[in-house]
Amino acid sequence: MKPTGPIPAGFEALDGELALGGVRVSEMEARAGRTPFFAYSKSLIAQRIADLRASLPQRIKVNYAIKANSYAPLLELISDLVDGLDIASGGELQMLQDLGVDGRRISFAGPGKRDAELEAAIAAGVTLNLESENEASRALAIAERIGKTPRLAVRVNPDFELKGSGMKMGGGAKPFGVDADRVPALIRTIVDAGCEWRGLHIFTGSQALSADAIIEAQANILALADRLAQEADVALPKLNMGGGFGIPYFHGDEPLDLDPVGEALSKHLQTLPKSLQDAELFVELGRYLVGEAGVYVTRIVDRKESHGQTYLVTDGGLHHQLAASGNFGTVVRRNYPVAIASRFDEEPTEDVNIVGCLCTPLDRLADKAFLPRAEVGDLVAVFCAGAYGASASPSAFLGQGPAAEVLI
Amino acid sequence: MKPTGPIPAGFEALDGELALGGVRVSEMEARAGRTPFFAYSKSLIAQRIADLRASLPQRIKVNYAIKANSYAPLLELISDLVDGLDIASGGELQMLQDLGVDGRRISFAGPGKRDAELEAAIAAGVTLNLESENEASRALAIAERIGKTPRLAVRVNPDFELKGSGMKMGGGAKPFGVDADRVPALIRTIVDAGCEWRGLHIFTGSQALSADAIIEAQANILALADRLAQEADVALPKLNMGGGFGIPYFHGDEPLDLDPVGEALSKHLQTLPKSLQDAELFVELGRYLVGEAGVYVTRIVDRKESHGQTYLVTDGGLHHQLAASGNFGTVVRRNYPVAIASRFDEEPTEDVNIVGCLCTPLDRLADKAFLPRAEVGDLVAVFCAGAYGASASPSAFLGQGPAAEVLI
Repeated sequence: MKPTGPIPAGFEALDGELALGGVRVSEMEARAGRTPFFAYSKSLIAQRIADLRASLPQRIKVNYAIKANSYAPLLELISDLVDGLDIASGGELQMLQDLGVDGRRISFAGPGKRDAELEAAIAAGVTLNLESENEASRALAIAERIGKTPRLAVRVNPDFELKGSGMKMGGGAKPFGVDADRVPALIRTIVDAGCEWRGLHIFTGSQALSADAIIEAQANILALADRLAQEADVALPKLNMGGGFGIPYFHGDEPLDLDPVGEALSKHLQTLPKSLQDAELFVELGRYLVGEAGVYVTRIVDRKESHGQTYLVTDGGLHHQLAASGNFGTVVRRNYPVAIASRFDEEPTEDVNIVGCLCTPLDRLADKAFLPRAEVGDLVAVFCAGAYGASASPSAFLGQGPAAEVLI
Repeated sequence: MKPTGPIPAGFEALDGELALGGVRVSEMEARAGRTPFFAYSKSLIAQRIADLRASLPQRIKVNYAIKANSYAPLLELISDLVDGLDIASGGELQMLQDLGVDGRRISFAGPGKRDAELEAAIAAGVTLNLESENEASRALAIAERIGKTPRLAVRVNPDFELKGSGMKMGGGAKPFGVDADRVPALIRTIVDAGCEWRGLHIFTGSQALSADAIIEAQANILALADRLAQEADVALPKLNMGGGFGIPYFHGDEPLDLDPVGEALSKHLQTLPKSLQDAELFVELGRYLVGEAGVYVTRIVDRKESHGQTYLVTDGGLHHQLAASGNFGTVVRRNYPVAIASRFDEEPTEDVNIVGCLCTPLDRLADKAFLPRAEVGDLVAVFCAGAYGASASPSAFLGQGPAAEVLI
């Protein structure tokens, strides 16, 4: 038996089925029209944002990084609940423009912005988090050509990292942002060029579950932002402190305790240096806002035995949930939280391997998970599917096509 | 400096640019209409198939597994050059039907076939490689309902594996096929039910570069097929021996030497057991036929320094070439073969990191590769992109969308 991850709060058994906010999984399937599907919960997302705001000082604003999940109805919901939206491509800008989101609420980070993307963003009044001196030159030239004042911030490659984070985005050589020691000169260049100066973006890592690590990183970010602002002799109208708030995926993971993070931020706010006194302070979160609010549901197509092991073969797989298969940014595969969604109140009785329908041994959704006995036709739930699921998976692989998505 | 993989044969420098069959990369880009793009070479694919046929005994037939690359113009080309086509989903069946491929040339393997997929395949005269007793029952019931005689083969989970293969598909408990000891009973069931009996499918692994390993696996496959046929008291009209022929991706990889494989097969053909004397014998290849015939081309959008390292930031990345980023089925990331395509005849002078445009540290195309100096606007080529590239990558990630594809 191998352990599975913790099932997020908010899921319940109703008439024996997995349910969310009173909606049973069979009803979700009827809404989706087919399996496999992703279901995202409005109420869990709203609750998460409310809890976050309750833990953080009122002054701290919340951005949503739409790369975590850009399903249009979810974007529409969340854009009203957060203070700003972060994009990583021109394609993501279009998604927000389709929904009528004001460009002035959007900021754009990404190391490989093309000229066409810079132009669309500048024209829409989006804040560019500049990733290099070269990108700054291109942005200024494009802005001059189209007769717009660009809204520019500088993304800093900090000299420190977020300890214990799943992905380190700072500390040492990186393709993201500008090395801290070159940032003051770049600030002066763009401010002197007459841009609308929008401050700094300092992202140190993601998927951290330790409050202490986040508190330390935020302290370092505030100190670095002040030092760079002083060196450039500017005040900071805005500071994006990045995110890094993790969610529990695996057995033994404990949820991040936000209260000490909020308390530490409160103390900082009482002693903010002059450069930051008028700054809008943002955290930028993606996975933390939506990851636990989504579930991926797939149907068992076959139940088979091989050399003493039981395999539940589903109609889904890594083409929809690459990360859960252990093939995206992980070295050692561990089980996500999973359940037999159509027998959610039954006791576990057997160890099973849950695999996808793809003809590759990479396509595993759970190894030796201890679950209730399931038959062909039963539904399997893979939790923590609200972020980096549908959009971060190779949906065309083996001609399968995307999963359905519903917001409930 | 970290080594890069070997550039496949057939690529050349023309007017300083990378070229393929006399077509320069700038011409390929003009054809594609944009970067990034995949270019696949008709002549390299045709040559590979001709070389393969020259090395193998004439009796051995060649199937193409379309999951390796299902770009429609490539499929159309290759379907005339091979003896049969293997699919892994109903979606892939539709692709071939769109091209007018006769269903009797197609076989369908995959552990999670849905009823609708079984029905479409049976109706089209496709051979089903049955993955379980349950699937056999469903196929027989569907065939009876629609009044067709199903063409059925049994996929065997062999008791041995292909040594040194990149992905093991046999040996021990597996979700693929039926354990060898249960195969004779299943053969009797489907033959007695009146199906058109199509023999066995025995797949042992993929991406092997050792001729000895393939020779040993094929010998084991032939012996196992005979044993199972004898136990079931049937002859084998067809035996799909799987593939497993690898291509060199990484520094130090040596191409597979096919001549000894062909010689060993010739000897087997002279002493075939009775059960196999009238069998059509197939190898099933995907990657081996198309992998080296494709190149992924992306443009440098930024050139930047960070803590003494140089980064070439491109407009492509893991959303098109997930495997090259090291995030798909690999534990330790190694460099694929790469080149500065727009300076293909220049001498290497510097170590650079080539990254994609995505805002994630996973998005790496080459680490510390020793290459000619490249500037913004130059084109980067990532080789060995003909198989498991476009269709096996999360093209919607971060709102980027798919790469262009051209067949040249």
